[in-house]
Amino acid sequence: MSANINEAIQKYQDIRKKLKAFEYALWMISWDTETEAPKGSLEYRALQIGTLSEELYKLMTSNEFIEVVQSLTAQNDQLDPHLAREIALAEKMIRQYVKIPMNEYVEYQMLLSQTQSIWADAKRQNNFDLFKPYLEKIVTMVKKQVKYLETDELKCYDVLLDIYEEGMKTTDYDSFFDTLRKDLVPFVMEIIKKEPKTFAFEKKTYPKELQKEFANYLMDVLDYNRHYGLLKESEHPFTSGVTTTDVRITTHYYEDNLVSSIFSVIHEAGHGLYEQQVNPDFNGTLLTGGASMAVHESQSRFYENIIGRSMPFWKAHFPRLQEIFNEQLQGVTLEEFYQYINKSEASYIRTEADELTYPLHIMIRYEIERDLMEDKISVSDLPQVWNKKMHDYLGITPRNDREGVLQDVHWSGGSFGYFPTYALGSAYGAQIYEAMKKDLDIEKELLSGITKAINAWLKEKIHKYGKSLPPKEVFEQAVGGKFDPKYYVEYLKSKYSKLL
Amino acid sequence: MSANINEAIQKYQDIRKKLKAFEYALWMISWDTETEAPKGSLEYRALQIGTLSEELYKLMTSNEFIEVVQSLTAQNDQLDPHLAREIALAEKMIRQYVKIPMNEYVEYQMLLSQTQSIWADAKRQNNFDLFKPYLEKIVTMVKKQVKYLETDELKCYDVLLDIYEEGMKTTDYDSFFDTLRKDLVPFVMEIIKKEPKTFAFEKKTYPKELQKEFANYLMDVLDYNRHYGLLKESEHPFTSGVTTTDVRITTHYYEDNLVSSIFSVIHEAGHGLYEQQVNPDFNGTLLTGGASMAVHESQSRFYENIIGRSMPFWKAHFPRLQEIFNEQLQGVTLEEFYQYINKSEASYIRTEADELTYPLHIMIRYEIERDLMEDKISVSDLPQVWNKKMHDYLGITPRNDREGVLQDVHWSGGSFGYFPTYALGSAYGAQIYEAMKKDLDIEKELLSGITKAINAWLKEKIHKYGKSLPPKEVFEQAVGGKFDPKYYVEYLKSKYSKLL
Repeated sequence: MSANINEAIQKYQDIRKKLKAFEYALWMISWDTETEAPKGSLEYRALQIGTLSEELYKLMTSNEFIEVVQSLTAQNDQLDPHLAREIALAEKMIRQYVKIPMNEYVEYQMLLSQTQSIWADAKRQNNFDLFKPYLEKIVTMVKKQVKYLETDELKCYDVLLDIYEEGMKTTDYDSFFDTLRKDLVPFVMEIIKKEPKTFAFEKKTYPKELQKEFANYLMDVLDYNRHYGLLKESEHPFTSGVTTTDVRITTHYYEDNLVSSIFSVIHEAGHGLYEQQVNPDFNGTLLTGGASMAVHESQSRFYENIIGRSMPFWKAHFPRLQEIFNEQLQGVTLEEFYQYINKSEASYIRTEADELTYPLHIMIRYEIERDLMEDKISVSDLPQVWNKKMHDYLGITPRNDREGVLQDVHWSGGSFGYFPTYALGSAYGAQIYEAMKKDLDIEKELLSGITKAINAWLKEKIHKYGKSLPPKEVFEQAVGGKFDPKYYVEYLKSKYSKLL
Repeated sequence: MSANINEAIQKYQDIRKKLKAFEYALWMISWDTETEAPKGSLEYRALQIGTLSEELYKLMTSNEFIEVVQSLTAQNDQLDPHLAREIALAEKMIRQYVKIPMNEYVEYQMLLSQTQSIWADAKRQNNFDLFKPYLEKIVTMVKKQVKYLETDELKCYDVLLDIYEEGMKTTDYDSFFDTLRKDLVPFVMEIIKKEPKTFAFEKKTYPKELQKEFANYLMDVLDYNRHYGLLKESEHPFTSGVTTTDVRITTHYYEDNLVSSIFSVIHEAGHGLYEQQVNPDFNGTLLTGGASMAVHESQSRFYENIIGRSMPFWKAHFPRLQEIFNEQLQGVTLEEFYQYINKSEASYIRTEADELTYPLHIMIRYEIERDLMEDKISVSDLPQVWNKKMHDYLGITPRNDREGVLQDVHWSGGSFGYFPTYALGSAYGAQIYEAMKKDLDIEKELLSGITKAINAWLKEKIHKYGKSLPPKEVFEQAVGGKFDPKYYVEYLKSKYSKLL
């Protein structure tokens, strides 16, 4: 290696240090905003976020940074593989930023710093009109950004899909959802036509303090490292990590719903375990965090559904649940509880949807986003379009926008192109499950009461790589083959046939 | 005004915008650190704080900023009074920063980002040795900084005193404490010699959840604006504000102590009300926040003691307290409760000390800091020196360092010179009380159950000015005269004579 390249590496690392510090500050502010910041503080904070984002933007688009990344890109074959991968990611990031004018970038960040809380108000008040003008602004700005970012290969919605899942285009997702529609939908339709079972205990009240107690128990079961993380409350559950040593998750407790917090804790802990188990050498670099959204979601949904809604898991933990809610769950059998947490029905809320109908909720969002980006529908149409699709795919019509178009946080944060990764992640999860079975007696591990061995397998096969490999490569290496949605379809059919 | 001066003002405001954004980021991170950050995240965060502080330092010591402040200082008489005051403050700040080499400043900030949590561990474990090496590092670095900052007028400890209270030197404080020692100590000694009354209810258990309920009630009584603030838990209660629209306070609930959280909430709300009631036009400038530490403390201690431990206050609120703790406070009379919250005795913990003995606790810290800075004692001596002074002034010896030298958070945050402002603030508070009596029927206001009118008086006389006037000027204008500690001595003697 020449002195020249070492100098360039040093320069790159110096700038990266600043980028990471700005990223950290903005991460911290966002965590605060979404969990506890006083309502009235938003205006002042939006100004500060604007200034910090502007400084970050300037740094990322500085000639100094662009030149050093270009120089290292040209000498990519002389870099160690991790640094080479990082430079490739930096190069892609720069490309995205330099194409968007700074004032638009800053204006967009400032807008987003307010819209999540406005969305939360609109949802609470069941008032789409409150959110509409802001969503319109977001969509207009996103479309403008898409124009800046289009390439010969990536057009329109493709641009956004590629941001969340490298290499996945509209045609790929169209084909993936077509497969699900063909192989899975008829099966799902049969099941949800039936009158769902009802359970007396589902109508009971589950005090928040007791739900908290069980959530903490679950954190132990999942061996979640609280020295490097925590569990808190927020409107919408999410995971927020910035380094392997600081990965935070949230949940929301509903006293009229026993399982909402249970499965959101398991889901978010799945995301969190991934981020905690990345190679710590990647901290402070661009390689920390999950490989992609779909790979991330494959982990959260693997924990939530494949493990978290399995019989062996609850054989181990139902006694504790029953102990905590001894009044509410008196006389309830494990089998009844298992039926309850796996009952499938047409329902309104995505995050509460069962494992089987879930991909249909995603399909609705995918189609809406695609049509919104392709100018086939407008923001004003959303409540109506949403309700029509719910009716067409799930046979039900939301009674209000709170349980319809206002339910998800994503669009208020400008996340378009994110949703389809949820379905892809679920499909990835099923194929990972098949691969894991070859190495582990999963049932035995679940009966042991702690997911340590499962965590370790995932760390070794997936988590530790972080972003050091492209997502497809991480996935294919872990499962020993190409992605095939048949595993997902087979897994669901097999599980739900037995439940009938 | 020349175009030249307008350009300079614009330039100043552009840089100030960045300074405030960095300040905001560091404020946010510090709030998180002290209230909820995962233990294991500290190392990574220390690096990010280091980088952000370095950028802030560079900006504050940049030629660009220094030049524009110098240029505006030279044209001070042409600026509007608020901007003129701000430029004077900026000039003082720059002077402090440019004298400390950047690497030492950054190293110090990184050290402080770790030491508060190490102090908390040491306190929990009652292990001074755990904290000692860090405190030694802090003291060494502070002494080095003092050397850089000394002027013809300010030597040694004076430098630190002046940082927290403009214009107060070692000789001023020596004289203030001498007055208290001469006029107050004999009175105090008589009182604490007596066997303190005991109350059956003080040994009871007060569940945290109920304490929280009363804390929230108090926030309403004090008319604390929660749209622009919040109440949270932390190891040591504190107030943290960054703009009038975001002022947060914390408390700590001890189940074996009913009044600890009550008076820390009132105390911190006193600080918080001050920051919330500053002229909002000062947001985003250097003029927001309290005028000085002593003026700040005059507000918190006014609310905590003069109001919060008064008979009319509890005439209004004891019924609610008794309602919440109906089991624990059954049969307790208002008079007994009043006696209890005003009992005076020699005690170990400053934050739990009664109004009368409190200044003696401060005197101990003041003397230790002064002697530490003047190299008359070393960090190793602290536990011993502390215990000896406790014995000499209060007639008791701490049984361990947790209730001795480890009790306060301040030194772990590098705050030397801060403590004496507490005593000065208490004395200011008594004189402000006298002035307020001329305009308000305070007893009537307290009996009304809400401190709205009192808040309004303080806003008008003190709060709204923020830092737009020097602290002495704010105080003298509010009380209509010079500072005289006799009001403090008389207030205490009058109150405690009646309690005997």
